[in-house]
Amino acid sequence: MAHRFVYNDHVHFHETDMAGIMHFANFFRLMERAEHAFFRSLGLSVVDRPEHAPAEERVGWPRVSATCDYLAPLKFEDEVEVELLVEEVRSRSVRYLFRIRKKDGKLAAEGRIAAVCVRKNAAGDGMIAVEIPQRIRLKIEAAPPELLLRPASA
Amino acid sequence: MAHRFVYNDHVHFHETDMAGIMHFANFFRLMERAEHAFFRSLGLSVVDRPEHAPAEERVGWPRVSATCDYLAPLKFEDEVEVELLVEEVRSRSVRYLFRIRKKDGKLAAEGRIAAVCVRKNAAGDGMIAVEIPQRIRLKIEAAPPELLLRPASA
Amino acid sequence: MAHRFVYNDHVHFHETDMAGIMHFANFFRLMERAEHAFFRSLGLSVVDRPEHAPAEERVGWPRVSATCDYLAPLKFEDEVEVELLVEEVRSRSVRYLFRIRKKDGKLAAEGRIAAVCVRKNAAGDGMIAVEIPQRIRLKIEAAPPELLLRPASA
Amino acid sequence: MAHRFVYNDHVHFHETDMAGIMHFANFFRLMERAEHAFFRSLGLSVVDRPEHAPAEERVGWPRVSATCDYLAPLKFEDEVEVELLVEEVRSRSVRYLFRIRKKDGKLAAEGRIAAVCVRKNAAGDGMIAVEIPQRIRLKIEAAPPELLLRPASA
Repeated sequence: MAHRFVYNDHVHFHETDMAGIMHFANFFRLMERAEHAFFRSLGLSVVDRPEHAPAEERVGWPRVSATCDYLAPLKFEDEVEVELLVEEVRSRSVRYLFRIRKKDGKLAAEGRIAAVCVRKNAAGDGMIAVEIPQRIRLKIEAAPPELLLRPASA
Repeated sequence: MAHRFVYNDHVHFHETDMAGIMHFANFFRLMERAEHAFFRSLGLSVVDRPEHAPAEERVGWPRVSATCDYLAPLKFEDEVEVELLVEEVRSRSVRYLFRIRKKDGKLAAEGRIAAVCVRKNAAGDGMIAVEIPQRIRLKIEAAPPELLLRPASA
Repeated sequence: MAHRFVYNDHVHFHETDMAGIMHFANFFRLMERAEHAFFRSLGLSVVDRPEHAPAEERVGWPRVSATCDYLAPLKFEDEVEVELLVEEVRSRSVRYLFRIRKKDGKLAAEGRIAAVCVRKNAAGDGMIAVEIPQRIRLKIEAAPPELLLRPASA
Repeated sequence: MAHRFVYNDHVHFHETDMAGIMHFANFFRLMERAEHAFFRSLGLSVVDRPEHAPAEERVGWPRVSATCDYLAPLKFEDEVEVELLVEEVRSRSVRYLFRIRKKDGKLAAEGRIAAVCVRKNAAGDGMIAVEIPQRIRLKIEAAPPELLLRPASA
C-alpha cells in the first residue's frame, strides 16, 4: 500500500504571469498532475477506462476542497519536486497533502486536495458519492503522522 | 442570417505571461469565447442541450485548423473588441475570421478557426462529420467579400 | 469605503474538463477576476500603472494562501454571480471571501484568497511586504461580520 | 547545429475539455513546451538569464504567427511525441514545424510557430526586432527539405 509519491516537473512558460512567477492557480494544476502520476504509479488512472473496470463500476474523483499556502515564488524553468502524501483515507474520500520544493530543498508551497469518490447516478445526469472500490482502496493508505507535520526548517 | 458579430472583453491577469503580455495561446481562447457568444446571440449554443435538439440530433464543433497572426501585443486590462466574420460555410464545416482590436482601433491580431460539424457515431466511441442541421444552417451565412479583406490601414 | 462587490460571468468552454464541469483550478481564476474587477470598481488596478502611482510607490499583490470549498459543479455557459467580501484588512495584507452562486442562487463554491502588499526591493530582484498605501487603504474596509457567515440555507 | 528535436509528454487532465479531448488551444502550449525543451537541449533558454548573456544582450521570442491542423483528437493520458523541426531561420526570426504523434505513430496534429528575436528598446517600454545573437544562431539550422514534407501516410 502506498502513502507517498514524488513527482518531478518544472515551471512552464505558459504557467507564469506578468509578475514573472508561476500564477497561483497553476499550483493546483501542478498538484493534480502529481496526484494523477501517483495513480498511474499504482497501475490505476484517475479516469477509469475499460481496462480498469466495467462501465458500471467506474468512479471519478471530483474535488471537495483545495487549499494552498504560498511560501516562495516559482519562476520559469525552476525545477520542482512535488511530494504527495495521503493525509486521510475515508470510506468515500481521500485527502492529499502536497509539498512543492525547489531544487535546493526550499519549500515553495504546501497544499491540500480533498476528493470524493463518485459514480454516475442511475439517470446518468449526475454523480453520487460511493465507497472507494477495493481495487483502489487496497493500494492507498494514510501516511504516518510524522510525515504529515510540516518540517520546522521549511 | 448572421455573418458578423462583435464581442467585447479585456485581458485577464491569468492570461498574461512573464513577458508582460497576453500569452499567444490565449488568443485562441479569446477567439473561441467570441465564437460561443456569436452562437448565443443566435439563440444557439456550441454545445447542444436538450432544449436545442433531441439527443440523436445534437452536434459538436471540433476544430480542423486554427491560425493567428500577432500584430501588436496585448497587456493586462487592455480592452479588446473581437470582430467575428463568417468566412466560409460549407455543408459540414464553418470557418471564422477574427479580428482583435484594441480600444484605439489598432489591430492586435487576426486569426481563423475552422470547425467541422460532428455527431457521435453509432458505437458512441467516436464522432463523424455530418451536415450542419438546418436549425443552425439557416442562421449563418458567409460574410460579403469586402468585409473579409484585411484593411490596408490595420 | 467598500467591502462588497458582485461580479457576473459565465463558465467558458475552455474552463471545463473531460468530466463536463468547470475544472477545480479555474475557480481560483474566477475569484481573481472578481478581485480585479473590484479594484477597477474603486478606480484602482491590481497592477499599478503610471497613472496610479510613481514607479517607486507601485505595489503588487502576490498570494499568501488560497482555498476553495466546492459545493456544486458548474457547467458550460452556467451564469455565475461571484460575491466578493473583504474578510480582513491588515496593515500589509487583505483577505477576500468569495461566494460563487448559480443563477438560481445556489451556492456552488466558497473560497478565500489572502494577498500581501509588496514593493520591489532595492536590488530590484525580489519583493518586500510593505504597508498598504493610503490611496488604496482608504477605499477598502472589512465587511460586517454578519455578511461573512455562510448562510445556513446555502 | 541542430534542426530537429523530439519532446515526449502526455495529455494532462486540465488540458481536456468537456468534449473529452485536449482543448485545441492547448496544442499551442504543448508545441511551446517542445520549443523550450529544444532550447534547453542546446544549453540555451528561451528566456535569457544572467548566466546566458549580460542584460543588454538578452533577447526574447514573441510570436509572429501560430497555426495548427488537427488530424486526430488526443485524450487524457495519451502519450504524445512532439517532433520539432526548424523550418526556416532568418536573420531576425525562426519558424518551427511541430508534428504531434500518438504512441502508435498516428499524426494527431501538425503546427507551426514563427517567433521573432527581440530586445528591449532604449526606453524600456517596448521591444524591437534584432538579429539573432551568434551564441544562438550558431546552434540552430534549418532542417533538410525532405524532413519538412508531411509524410503521405500520416
